[in-house]
Amino acid sequence: MEKITPRSLIDFGDLAYSEANEIFDLAEKIKKSPADYSSVCRGKIMATLFYEPSTRTQLSFQSAMMRLGGTVIGFSDPNNSSVAKGESLRDTVKIIAGYSDITVIRSPLEGVAYAASLYSKVPIINAGDGSHLHPTQTLTDLMTIRELKGTFTGLKIGLCGDLLNGRTVHSLLRALCGIGKNKYYLISTDELKIPEYIRQTLIESGSEVYELNTIEECISELDILYMTRIQRERFKSYEQYEKQAGIYILDSAKLNAAKSDLIILHPLPKVDEIEYTVDDDSRAKYFLQAENGMYVRMALVSKLLEYDKQPIKCEYPLPSERFCANPRCVTNHERYLPEKIVVKNSVRCCAYCEHTI
Amino acid sequence: MEKITPRSLIDFGDLAYSEANEIFDLAEKIKKSPADYSSVCRGKIMATLFYEPSTRTQLSFQSAMMRLGGTVIGFSDPNNSSVAKGESLRDTVKIIAGYSDITVIRSPLEGVAYAASLYSKVPIINAGDGSHLHPTQTLTDLMTIRELKGTFTGLKIGLCGDLLNGRTVHSLLRALCGIGKNKYYLISTDELKIPEYIRQTLIESGSEVYELNTIEECISELDILYMTRIQRERFKSYEQYEKQAGIYILDSAKLNAAKSDLIILHPLPKVDEIEYTVDDDSRAKYFLQAENGMYVRMALVSKLLEYDKQPIKCEYPLPSERFCANPRCVTNHERYLPEKIVVKNSVRCCAYCEHTI
Amino acid sequence: MEKITPRSLIDFGDLAYSEANEIFDLAEKIKKSPADYSSVCRGKIMATLFYEPSTRTQLSFQSAMMRLGGTVIGFSDPNNSSVAKGESLRDTVKIIAGYSDITVIRSPLEGVAYAASLYSKVPIINAGDGSHLHPTQTLTDLMTIRELKGTFTGLKIGLCGDLLNGRTVHSLLRALCGIGKNKYYLISTDELKIPEYIRQTLIESGSEVYELNTIEECISELDILYMTRIQRERFKSYEQYEKQAGIYILDSAKLNAAKSDLIILHPLPKVDEIEYTVDDDSRAKYFLQAENGMYVRMALVSKLLEYDKQPIKCEYPLPSERFCANPRCVTNHERYLPEKIVVKNSVRCCAYCEHTI
Repeated sequence: MEKITPRSLIDFGDLAYSEANEIFDLAEKIKKSPADYSSVCRGKIMATLFYEPSTRTQLSFQSAMMRLGGTVIGFSDPNNSSVAKGESLRDTVKIIAGYSDITVIRSPLEGVAYAASLYSKVPIINAGDGSHLHPTQTLTDLMTIRELKGTFTGLKIGLCGDLLNGRTVHSLLRALCGIGKNKYYLISTDELKIPEYIRQTLIESGSEVYELNTIEECISELDILYMTRIQRERFKSYEQYEKQAGIYILDSAKLNAAKSDLIILHPLPKVDEIEYTVDDDSRAKYFLQAENGMYVRMALVSKLLEYDKQPIKCEYPLPSERFCANPRCVTNHERYLPEKIVVKNSVRCCAYCEHTI
Repeated sequence: MEKITPRSLIDFGDLAYSEANEIFDLAEKIKKSPADYSSVCRGKIMATLFYEPSTRTQLSFQSAMMRLGGTVIGFSDPNNSSVAKGESLRDTVKIIAGYSDITVIRSPLEGVAYAASLYSKVPIINAGDGSHLHPTQTLTDLMTIRELKGTFTGLKIGLCGDLLNGRTVHSLLRALCGIGKNKYYLISTDELKIPEYIRQTLIESGSEVYELNTIEECISELDILYMTRIQRERFKSYEQYEKQAGIYILDSAKLNAAKSDLIILHPLPKVDEIEYTVDDDSRAKYFLQAENGMYVRMALVSKLLEYDKQPIKCEYPLPSERFCANPRCVTNHERYLPEKIVVKNSVRCCAYCEHTI
Repeated sequence: MEKITPRSLIDFGDLAYSEANEIFDLAEKIKKSPADYSSVCRGKIMATLFYEPSTRTQLSFQSAMMRLGGTVIGFSDPNNSSVAKGESLRDTVKIIAGYSDITVIRSPLEGVAYAASLYSKVPIINAGDGSHLHPTQTLTDLMTIRELKGTFTGLKIGLCGDLLNGRTVHSLLRALCGIGKNKYYLISTDELKIPEYIRQTLIESGSEVYELNTIEECISELDILYMTRIQRERFKSYEQYEKQAGIYILDSAKLNAAKSDLIILHPLPKVDEIEYTVDDDSRAKYFLQAENGMYVRMALVSKLLEYDKQPIKCEYPLPSERFCANPRCVTNHERYLPEKIVVKNSVRCCAYCEHTI
């Protein structure tokens, strides 16, 4: 992804490793002494623009801003009036930048946060764009791994569930690849295996990769087990979803074979993939992980607000024709967005949604 | 109802009489000098989880927290995304407890706030669970009676409207019974008479009970007249509702026969059961009552936040089969909730919704 | 419109010219040094009652209050529960006045803010009532004209789009007429020409009025060009809307003929009436205008909160029959509202919605 000047966080990969570590360091300090940071954002306003509702993420950001002494405005209704009246994302973003100091965007289309960052004079945080990226989830996951394991390398990490569509899985794996080598145990049905380009990225990073169909085959090896929900909303039909749902259940019986220092993570919400009794197992760390999400967002917001606002260059030529084939890419909804290409593994991709051109 | 350690308010009956009086004393102090309390909750966050919208109650809690210098996060949409994705109440409550210092819950199912209190490390306030309880309304009603009458006993109290389903009526009567004796004039149609078990409770408490069909028969006697709305939403069919709606109208003509120091209360919102001219009668106290609702919630929140957080024991065996027949009981929606029974008047009842087992 | 004691802002015409100028002066001071005003409303609460969603306006008010150090409660859902339960506007307003220090109301019916001001002990700000008034938009427009042109008179002002229904256009013209003379170039299709009574008002104020069908005919003359959106929601049928939409597009080609110090305004949101390249033209001032909206609301809220609260006289006789024929007038929905007539240009009009009686 094309590097954005570090005013916004669109993709975890926007951050240099040192910048990410600064955020983790700050998040840990805040977690130890939250009261010391309760005025950092006094007088500042965060705007949360949620074009797709997500209770968890929105409450996490709101809480983070308030714990820093700031306030929050925003909307979370896909049918909000300005959109219904036909206002462009570009105009919305420009105007909201006049009402706030930092803007958080969540949308069902891919590339929206990136598009917004082209027009906003305040920092943009990507709170999730379609099935593409969710960088603050990755920050949350990494902060938790660092806190509980003290390292990002030399680990045996199992990931289970929908590895084909799961953006938190993709984002976590790409982030870890950028840091060092691990052994990865990818547990899924054949239909929901990790995309080939990510598998390649893992291998090229020097990591070992095992693709498995069951949790039992590998759980005794693992240092970390990252469970994911089979997301109804990522499937085209309910039948396709039903075939995949409920196949992987982590229960106490399976955990009998696991190491005593295994940590179990899940980006939440969970449905049936983790049995309730596991919640009370000391190895279950997903509620701690959710709480860390608030602290890491506090640290991120603090850091982004330290940067001076950068002027925006708005002279973009309108594209003469569509350049991205992904129907869920923002460029096929906001037709004024300029064509931007990135080269990834020698392949030309749309800079907004990263689909192949 | 099983006593909760006084970190949460699920049922008005959770409070000892002395604790309730402390809350009324504090509410009156706050009402006199609100500015003195404007920093009590600085830096604290209230989460309002409204699974059923209720504008009045939500604004009252939000205003209360802000007047104390605190902030508010939350949702009020029954279709909020985490629920739509299948997240359990238990998980939601645990996660929200990481983002807030106190949680207020409103739901259309009975027993939800009680269920939440089993899993939350922050205090839970029940803002209304189905047709079961609404303890902060009772606090509001009692504070107003105390303010205007100076006592809870020896009064002649008329209650009018839907006495069968009206939870505020049930809660108020149960609370008064726990304090002392009054004379009760229960005005309703035959179909909407007070449930027998409550009538029994009134009599056993030593109070006199008169069941009447008209306001006129008793209004000249009353010290207090508590009017209620016939709630469309509590009826199975519109026809049943129509038969009952509009029968009781309190108007200026009827008030001609009333004492000059009668006080007229109503939990609001009102529809047609009180004629508009009555709003301007000095005996109409329902707007004062609504305003008291904010002060009493300020006092309650202050008090609950004084208590140290108590550790939650989460080791509950899953029930092997359904134990409660009430389809609106939370235990028939959140199937992991443990079976809990209370004995009420020698009858075994579900601890969540208080229906007979 | 009948003068309201200056506790509320229902119509821009409620303000004397000196009062309006005080607001502009204060808004400019706040814009220069926002930090100096960041505690003006500490401890104060604004309630935003939006019976009709309007993301822009609501975020603008929220941001304004927060930048003053205050907080915000409210709703923005037309299906909010109290309304659904049948509560009157009068009761809602009285109760909200107990929870807030100032109330902002937006509604699809005309006359609602005026009706609310009859019953509220806190100031009411009209954030838009149906197709009637939107006084804070007028304050925003005038502040921007003053900032960029230094005067309200002797200007050549073009207004383009739906001049028949456009309430911001009507309000701006009426305000300017009250101050002095300008030359007005009214650009619209024949179907959407300015209402005759406003054209009369312009002429009687000594201004010159030209009614034109194209932008090109006059753009080289203009000091100000005020573009408006053809609003789908103001038309009875989609076919009628389609006939009018898209006729006027302001583009770079047309701007070649314009003065270098022309200023282009638009109340936003915009759809297709301004080509995207115009956004980057230095004469485009609508984003500045939107930002000014926040500052002028900050100034307005400050001023209104300086006034002592005035007691409300609530003794209104109920009207015996309907007196206003406008189906969208609040008096035909809240049937208890008293009949109030104003005389405008010797014509008797409903005081709420200003339709002819």
